[in-house]
Amino acid sequence: MRIGIDLGGTNIAAGLVDVSCAIIAKDSVRTPAGADAIVSAMADLTRSLCQKAGVETIESAGVGSPGSIDASAGVVVFSNNLHFRNVPLADMLSERLGVLVKIGNDANAAALGEARAGAAKGRESMILVTLGTGVGGGIIIGGEIYDGFNGMAGEVGHTVIVKDGALCTCGRKGCWEAYTSATGLIRMTKEAMERAPDSLMHKITRDMGKVSGRTAFAAERRGDAAAGAVVSAYLSYTACGLANLINLFQPAVLCLGGGIANEGQTLIERLEPLLEPECFDVGERKTVLRLAELGNDAGIIGAALL
Amino acid sequence: MRIGIDLGGTNIAAGLVDVSCAIIAKDSVRTPAGADAIVSAMADLTRSLCQKAGVETIESAGVGSPGSIDASAGVVVFSNNLHFRNVPLADMLSERLGVLVKIGNDANAAALGEARAGAAKGRESMILVTLGTGVGGGIIIGGEIYDGFNGMAGEVGHTVIVKDGALCTCGRKGCWEAYTSATGLIRMTKEAMERAPDSLMHKITRDMGKVSGRTAFAAERRGDAAAGAVVSAYLSYTACGLANLINLFQPAVLCLGGGIANEGQTLIERLEPLLEPECFDVGERKTVLRLAELGNDAGIIGAALL
Repeated sequence: MRIGIDLGGTNIAAGLVDVSCAIIAKDSVRTPAGADAIVSAMADLTRSLCQKAGVETIESAGVGSPGSIDASAGVVVFSNNLHFRNVPLADMLSERLGVLVKIGNDANAAALGEARAGAAKGRESMILVTLGTGVGGGIIIGGEIYDGFNGMAGEVGHTVIVKDGALCTCGRKGCWEAYTSATGLIRMTKEAMERAPDSLMHKITRDMGKVSGRTAFAAERRGDAAAGAVVSAYLSYTACGLANLINLFQPAVLCLGGGIANEGQTLIERLEPLLEPECFDVGERKTVLRLAELGNDAGIIGAALL
Repeated sequence: MRIGIDLGGTNIAAGLVDVSCAIIAKDSVRTPAGADAIVSAMADLTRSLCQKAGVETIESAGVGSPGSIDASAGVVVFSNNLHFRNVPLADMLSERLGVLVKIGNDANAAALGEARAGAAKGRESMILVTLGTGVGGGIIIGGEIYDGFNGMAGEVGHTVIVKDGALCTCGRKGCWEAYTSATGLIRMTKEAMERAPDSLMHKITRDMGKVSGRTAFAAERRGDAAAGAVVSAYLSYTACGLANLINLFQPAVLCLGGGIANEGQTLIERLEPLLEPECFDVGERKTVLRLAELGNDAGIIGAALL
């Protein structure tokens, strides 16, 4: 039995994961402030889970953390969300739990979870792209996380697809994230709403309280043309970045997660024909586009597998 | 002793490569038309090289071929340049030479050569980007070619950096290749020449007979402002794509080859400050940008190592 911990800026989620990659017990707590308090919270969560499940000993623990991770040293080099700089998280938690602790980037851990137990189970290579507030990514090659020579690879959201385009949170201009994240979609939705005062998007916004990544999709389903144009543009940007990934990596599976992936199979079906003419794959063996299957559990399972 | 063959649309270059990755004899012939004639030419070239070098037996042979390669089957699935479709090149040459023959994509073979014996010797990961008529690429991870689950990965030139931008030879719009290849540079040079009838670029073009990838660089060195603007734009596009590769792969070495890399170390020195603010690397371990060292020999050495 292993423990997998998904350390987020808001919550810490942990689960006991068995040899078949199933979560047999899980729980979460709010993320406290400071490294010591976070380590204590993770240790407490582990103990209470073991107690609840009647598990006496765990083999090892893994933590998926936001930020730049030096996995071999077990150090969070930098995390904006957690206000961490060079925190030896693995050693700190290992001291509290008395078992080996491995750490990794949270997006990479989620990709590992989907690769071993979810949407790409049994396939040799996959890229998980999470379409959320930002655009995260994790690259799995030969069943293992690929994180480059310095542990920082896989920043799929921070590749420019519109040179000198929209300003990204990272400071670059025209990153894929600035267009294909929920944040980018919300920006495009708001711009379209300004141009189309009669659009259904205004009514939906009033009903839902605010513009979200669902506004344009919902209005389009009810036949709103301005919303349809927003969704078309969004899908076109999304397909552009996905095709770039395919032409570079040719992964067996390209997996979409995050809030916008909640649009479901229709998202896949609308992206596929946009990808087809953009991809350099000759013959039968084409990358399969799939929805992530494990949701938030991917991060827990993947962390346990680190 | 192994034989490495770089099969091009114009020439076939072959070399005898020893265990230290040195070429002890090499030669080339024009590429004839048709698979049988090409295989015969490769076999003849091999025999004459062995004779010339006094080598009686070779261990194995490798061929770097343009196009889409199924390396495990030894088949050239498709090559526009060679007019090949599903040609079992490895078996055909093996029959003629009586030794094991491996084939691979030519850009990948060149990357393998630079990784094992050139600019990235001893480093675990590298990407070779060739700035020539097109933009080729080869990805080396863990000392081996990374070519995806279907053998077609590494199309670095065919990733969009300007959505809906300049038409690329591949049919997509705004590919990196359309801006950072010699072809792209020549297009931008010609456009600038139309706008600047007094530019030195006109005189240089008359002297050299045509506009080339060197025209703008040469005029800039002599103080021409219009040429300077072309070179600045070119370097900005080039840095954009290189930063994308770093943010995705974080390779230990990013290696530039092809005709435009003949601009030399100054090219590296001008790209580095453009890359710095665009790359997601925290701490000390940053990708090193380098010129390719082996020139055309990279393809021969890499093919021998397949």
